[in-house]
Amino acid sequence: MQAEIIAIGDELLIGQTINSNAAWLGKNLNQIGIRVFRSVVIGDEKAEILNMLDEASSRSDVIIITGGLGPTKDDITKHTLCEYFQSDLIINEEALARITGFFQERGLPMLEMNRQQAALPSKCTVIQNTRGTACGMWFEKDGKVFISMPGVPFEMYGMMEDEVLEMLAKRFERPDILHRTIMTIGVGESFLADKIASWENSLAELNIKLAYLPSPGQVKLRMSCYSGDKLVNLAAIKRKESELLEIIGEYVYAYDDDALNIVVGRLLRQTGTTVAVAESCTGGVIANLLTAEPGSSDFFEGGLVTYSERLKQQVLKVPAALIKEKNVVSTEVAEVMALGAKAYFGTDYALATTGIAGPGGGTEEIPVGTICIALATPNGTVSKRYKFVRRRDLNIEMACNTALNMLRKEILKEIGGS
Amino acid sequence: MQAEIIAIGDELLIGQTINSNAAWLGKNLNQIGIRVFRSVVIGDEKAEILNMLDEASSRSDVIIITGGLGPTKDDITKHTLCEYFQSDLIINEEALARITGFFQERGLPMLEMNRQQAALPSKCTVIQNTRGTACGMWFEKDGKVFISMPGVPFEMYGMMEDEVLEMLAKRFERPDILHRTIMTIGVGESFLADKIASWENSLAELNIKLAYLPSPGQVKLRMSCYSGDKLVNLAAIKRKESELLEIIGEYVYAYDDDALNIVVGRLLRQTGTTVAVAESCTGGVIANLLTAEPGSSDFFEGGLVTYSERLKQQVLKVPAALIKEKNVVSTEVAEVMALGAKAYFGTDYALATTGIAGPGGGTEEIPVGTICIALATPNGTVSKRYKFVRRRDLNIEMACNTALNMLRKEILKEIGGS
Repeated sequence: MQAEIIAIGDELLIGQTINSNAAWLGKNLNQIGIRVFRSVVIGDEKAEILNMLDEASSRSDVIIITGGLGPTKDDITKHTLCEYFQSDLIINEEALARITGFFQERGLPMLEMNRQQAALPSKCTVIQNTRGTACGMWFEKDGKVFISMPGVPFEMYGMMEDEVLEMLAKRFERPDILHRTIMTIGVGESFLADKIASWENSLAELNIKLAYLPSPGQVKLRMSCYSGDKLVNLAAIKRKESELLEIIGEYVYAYDDDALNIVVGRLLRQTGTTVAVAESCTGGVIANLLTAEPGSSDFFEGGLVTYSERLKQQVLKVPAALIKEKNVVSTEVAEVMALGAKAYFGTDYALATTGIAGPGGGTEEIPVGTICIALATPNGTVSKRYKFVRRRDLNIEMACNTALNMLRKEILKEIGGS
Repeated sequence: MQAEIIAIGDELLIGQTINSNAAWLGKNLNQIGIRVFRSVVIGDEKAEILNMLDEASSRSDVIIITGGLGPTKDDITKHTLCEYFQSDLIINEEALARITGFFQERGLPMLEMNRQQAALPSKCTVIQNTRGTACGMWFEKDGKVFISMPGVPFEMYGMMEDEVLEMLAKRFERPDILHRTIMTIGVGESFLADKIASWENSLAELNIKLAYLPSPGQVKLRMSCYSGDKLVNLAAIKRKESELLEIIGEYVYAYDDDALNIVVGRLLRQTGTTVAVAESCTGGVIANLLTAEPGSSDFFEGGLVTYSERLKQQVLKVPAALIKEKNVVSTEVAEVMALGAKAYFGTDYALATTGIAGPGGGTEEIPVGTICIALATPNGTVSKRYKFVRRRDLNIEMACNTALNMLRKEILKEIGGS
């Protein structure tokens, strides 16, 4: 039982759009026991689409197609599917009513090309789109299922969540696929691999596959079982996880793709504490991460992006003399910024960053990638100077992760965790 | 002359990682005239990798492979390539010296598995990695080129930019691929398509392909020429662009994937003006967008994320009575916030947002998706109430784009543009 994803769109091939749909589909299909075997991107070309449908259905049971369903002339997926399945188009009344309503609600004129979006292949089961005007289509041929959905992520998610996942779950017998991811921070991939080598060797006989997923400053370890008895596999993964924590527990900050910002938000909520941020080189990204989830107003009081020295002095009360003596990029200035933000916002914790994200602005003494991070806590301040890399985006990412991890560790200390 | 991309990694198939490498490669290959014909993701399975190499080389001249080159056991690409090209591994001294240096610089122990990364197929041209420990490999077989690079984007980018793009440009005769993208904001896809229908019909005889790329609140129009004479095509695209601007110029804000934040930053710099932001529901994202590019301290003075009403009152001087009378989500409060931020930061412009991003917090009167945006300018304030959608991330994205576009239009008004 395996699936294959076909994304259609020249914009994906020429790099104008990143194919994030494939990852979303992979994750959601896995959760119901459908393994994605291959994922392909092709252009808006009829011959290529027809070829791919033949190829994919020779290998896979479910073929999921995204893209090419818009109302404009460059969108050819629907007509190509009609040709492939030898089907004509008929107006679907439910779709037509929805599309009409969509334009009425927005007070926009409905055009003939919009009406034509309700013309759907007679041989498909129509999947209604509650978030847009392009319907989805479910075809079956020689025991294989073909599902075509729009490329607009928000619309595709809606169809999958509202209908398609359930239809697939009913249509196929599926094994239980299990994944367990252990998220580490502050340790290198090969150092980690060396530490857990004998533990890793013990996984094969339990039918557990291990993957290392490095990203800036972090490594995720993923254990996967693709076959076998669910309860046996669950128990084995659980046991192996306990063993792993004995070895590298100090580096583990979360599980199963729980992002660091989510973990930190949860800790703040649990402890009933609040945080504020004063960001220089990270330009609002920490505030953004801390408010990414709903309900963050419970613990996030506010943030200041203080690009200029004047603001650091006026609002955060960083003495000009300190900036002159220690440089604006210094742990001392970062600490005063954190204390200033804590006082200003009246919070329990405050994070501050100051540094040179690059690519310009570096000096011999303070090269690009130098970033000082400080945290003011109920019991004092901690700070550290880092030397990251040359790239602006990576420097900002690493600084944010490091800052959030600093906060996480301090909260755990406060509540007596490890 | 066409290329195919093979990304190797279970994490891509199960959706733990988004394959952003393919888009980056597509864009950069296009720029040197190499068209990506297909892009595929497969798992870390030897048989599947071997199959894909056969398949891809039967279709394409260049096969670019990313992923599976790490030092850990789950990475099997290098050994699989050795099998495919019937090559053994030999230590590459330059790579070994680099890897050794990499660990020395960081004060980290070098392990045998790191040393093994310098063992490379004797039949390949080694592509050095200046940003990590996994080398790239360039193979040739039956006139086809196979290039294997790490999946870590930062490392892969380095190899492409430092060596591979130039090697490819020398190795193949390439046509000139031309793309021109016109970015519009504030107009729907089908409305746009209807307005430009006869213009669009005139493109075919010029060998120009048109694509519509909608995203929240925006539509990109891309004209592409994949063959023919470069100068003739350039002239045709230029002429058609002028015609297009006559029809829909009022909606156009940029060209060739110039992001809205970049355009706004450029306008601020050109006019020597400064901006600050006071963000409630957008939680720092506008500050983050305005500081995304190097040198933004020239025009970005600072930002405040004011989640709480207390902060709005204390710092931005929003009267409690106004909040009580008009509700915190109102154009009136947004305007006072913008004026407060403008005064506080001493800037020429200030943007403010207040709203319900969701999913919680909505009421009948002020449902989720209601967002008020205000801009204080040197000559007064403008503000508008929007009703976006139900999804938190889309609401934040649309609010940020709308706010930046409001700023863009006002700056243009000031300088007498359209």
